[in-house]
Amino acid sequence: MSKGRLEAFSDGVFAVIITIMVLDLKVPTGTTFAALKSVLPVFLSYVLSFVYVGIYWNNHHHLLHASDKVSGGILWANLHLLFWLSLAPFATAWLGENPHAAVPVALYGVVLLFAGIAYFILTKSLIHRHGMDSALAISIGRDRKGIVSVSVYAVAIPLAFVRPWIACTCYVLVAVMWLLPDPRIERNIDA
Amino acid sequence: MSKGRLEAFSDGVFAVIITIMVLDLKVPTGTTFAALKSVLPVFLSYVLSFVYVGIYWNNHHHLLHASDKVSGGILWANLHLLFWLSLAPFATAWLGENPHAAVPVALYGVVLLFAGIAYFILTKSLIHRHGMDSALAISIGRDRKGIVSVSVYAVAIPLAFVRPWIACTCYVLVAVMWLLPDPRIERNIDA
Amino acid sequence: MSKGRLEAFSDGVFAVIITIMVLDLKVPTGTTFAALKSVLPVFLSYVLSFVYVGIYWNNHHHLLHASDKVSGGILWANLHLLFWLSLAPFATAWLGENPHAAVPVALYGVVLLFAGIAYFILTKSLIHRHGMDSALAISIGRDRKGIVSVSVYAVAIPLAFVRPWIACTCYVLVAVMWLLPDPRIERNIDA
Amino acid sequence: MSKGRLEAFSDGVFAVIITIMVLDLKVPTGTTFAALKSVLPVFLSYVLSFVYVGIYWNNHHHLLHASDKVSGGILWANLHLLFWLSLAPFATAWLGENPHAAVPVALYGVVLLFAGIAYFILTKSLIHRHGMDSALAISIGRDRKGIVSVSVYAVAIPLAFVRPWIACTCYVLVAVMWLLPDPRIERNIDA
Repeated sequence: MSKGRLEAFSDGVFAVIITIMVLDLKVPTGTTFAALKSVLPVFLSYVLSFVYVGIYWNNHHHLLHASDKVSGGILWANLHLLFWLSLAPFATAWLGENPHAAVPVALYGVVLLFAGIAYFILTKSLIHRHGMDSALAISIGRDRKGIVSVSVYAVAIPLAFVRPWIACTCYVLVAVMWLLPDPRIERNIDA
Repeated sequence: MSKGRLEAFSDGVFAVIITIMVLDLKVPTGTTFAALKSVLPVFLSYVLSFVYVGIYWNNHHHLLHASDKVSGGILWANLHLLFWLSLAPFATAWLGENPHAAVPVALYGVVLLFAGIAYFILTKSLIHRHGMDSALAISIGRDRKGIVSVSVYAVAIPLAFVRPWIACTCYVLVAVMWLLPDPRIERNIDA
Repeated sequence: MSKGRLEAFSDGVFAVIITIMVLDLKVPTGTTFAALKSVLPVFLSYVLSFVYVGIYWNNHHHLLHASDKVSGGILWANLHLLFWLSLAPFATAWLGENPHAAVPVALYGVVLLFAGIAYFILTKSLIHRHGMDSALAISIGRDRKGIVSVSVYAVAIPLAFVRPWIACTCYVLVAVMWLLPDPRIERNIDA
Repeated sequence: MSKGRLEAFSDGVFAVIITIMVLDLKVPTGTTFAALKSVLPVFLSYVLSFVYVGIYWNNHHHLLHASDKVSGGILWANLHLLFWLSLAPFATAWLGENPHAAVPVALYGVVLLFAGIAYFILTKSLIHRHGMDSALAISIGRDRKGIVSVSVYAVAIPLAFVRPWIACTCYVLVAVMWLLPDPRIERNIDA
């Protein structure tokens, strides 16, 4: 079974998710700077989600580049990841309209948490398929960034009910951490 | 005629269908758990449809992987399948807003029924093109799962007018049946 | 310059156009058969437009399959075609809501007319690039179907102001004409 | 790291952006020519943005065709470009509804300006990766058109607060400039 269509379908879903989120940026009523400023929270949540989907696409790209075999289980592990990411437009729109409210902020973290877990499952499925001593398994290693991310989300979600802005800050910090280049798989490929 | 563009176009349509369904998950008014709970029926219908489109993408992937020839008729049989699947966002949104009403529940089944029939026609077109003794024809065999699915939908649709929840249970059970790996084509490919 | 990305981008645009049209199929208010029946005109216009976009994708597939060279001008001729097709969701929604009104019916014909002309220009650009004695030029020949289509649209548009249903019938008949397989390019490829 | 998925993902995003903009062309209320005329400003802003996204896709196509290496930084430079282009539907819809208002006209220019800068950064990242004496670097040269475009946007944005129509004219003129074929990279490829 080839990985070509898995990549093509995933690219399509990533492309649609990252782009339709902008449909929640509603045209403001009025034409003043104040009117424009009213969409700022939705815009900032859009930026954050755009970066997150970009991070996932980037990691997905690296992960599948280092893979050469797929299976039925991997197709479903991939769809499972795409499912959680497909909720990004919903979670982003609700967060953008209510950036100081506990439940929307927590829900955004829940979607990130489950997407993180789904990515972890996809990674494990691919390692299982390629073997523990494969180049893929070695290059992924202990996946410290993934574990840190999921842990931060798990802490941020209850914090959203105490201080929503702390949870939001956590989400931003995790995104920043991922924006720094990940040398693990790239190093392995260059070697 | 190559199958590459058929797969690429189909992947694009599958990707858009599976993703735009989330646009019917409207941001709730209010920021409470109760507000979030109000979108639960729409969310559950979204999950069910996401799984169904995922199943179709998966089966489509296997079917075309095992094929190597396409024709004008197969292009239209494929578009016919995509047509019924493209109605999923509409049927899902109506079902999600009215999960206990007979007509929306029945309509969801009608869309599933026609998608199932369209998949059957696509399969027959491909077998016709490759020959009854081709690897493709042998690997598909009698297509028991497809026949069971279409039969269950045909029974569920009238049942929706008696007890909508029984019809919904039928749709869920068929999805679960398909989530179990299908050894037919994979076995043949591995051989 | 390769045709691969031209096909991939076009497939993406075709896939999005054919799928987002369904977003204009609004969920009916109420759950009765009467409520469902109220979306019937929009549904029928959706079916017609789905078939038209499918026809264009099909013809585009054949046309580019028979081509092997592209140029800057061809990229723009292709974008020009995609522009008119991208108006299909708008024209379809307006027609669906007002199937008996002159202007919406005429506008639908105008979009079809310009898409037809754009396809003609794309064909000429490709023939110009490949030469008048190329396999592509010979297989396209006089393009009778294209000329008939554009002529019928040109007649149907003014007719929409007299009897809208006659114009609609013209659009349906042209679609039916295209659904019949086109032996020109396929014959050439098989030879 | 291959450029194939970068192109495929970008094509998907370009395809979705260029197509979902049409969703802001709302079906007019009424079926008269006057009703249709009321959507003309939104339609014209749609045409302009369609052409701009087409120009970016075209240039992106040429740029990556002339490239053969990508890196993590290039993936992000590309996503950065796609981010600004993804704001096109929002900026287009606001401009279309308020073509004579200063802030919407200026905002449209701001999106064009940042997209232009992002394209410049992507170009520099690719040149950095391929070397100053690579065919890519030579073919891009001083990128006069890019510098002219960004300069015009920078002048047009403040002008929007004096005479919005002058800023709009600037945007149109830059688009026309790009529609003229760019001999730089094509010449190099043909050589």
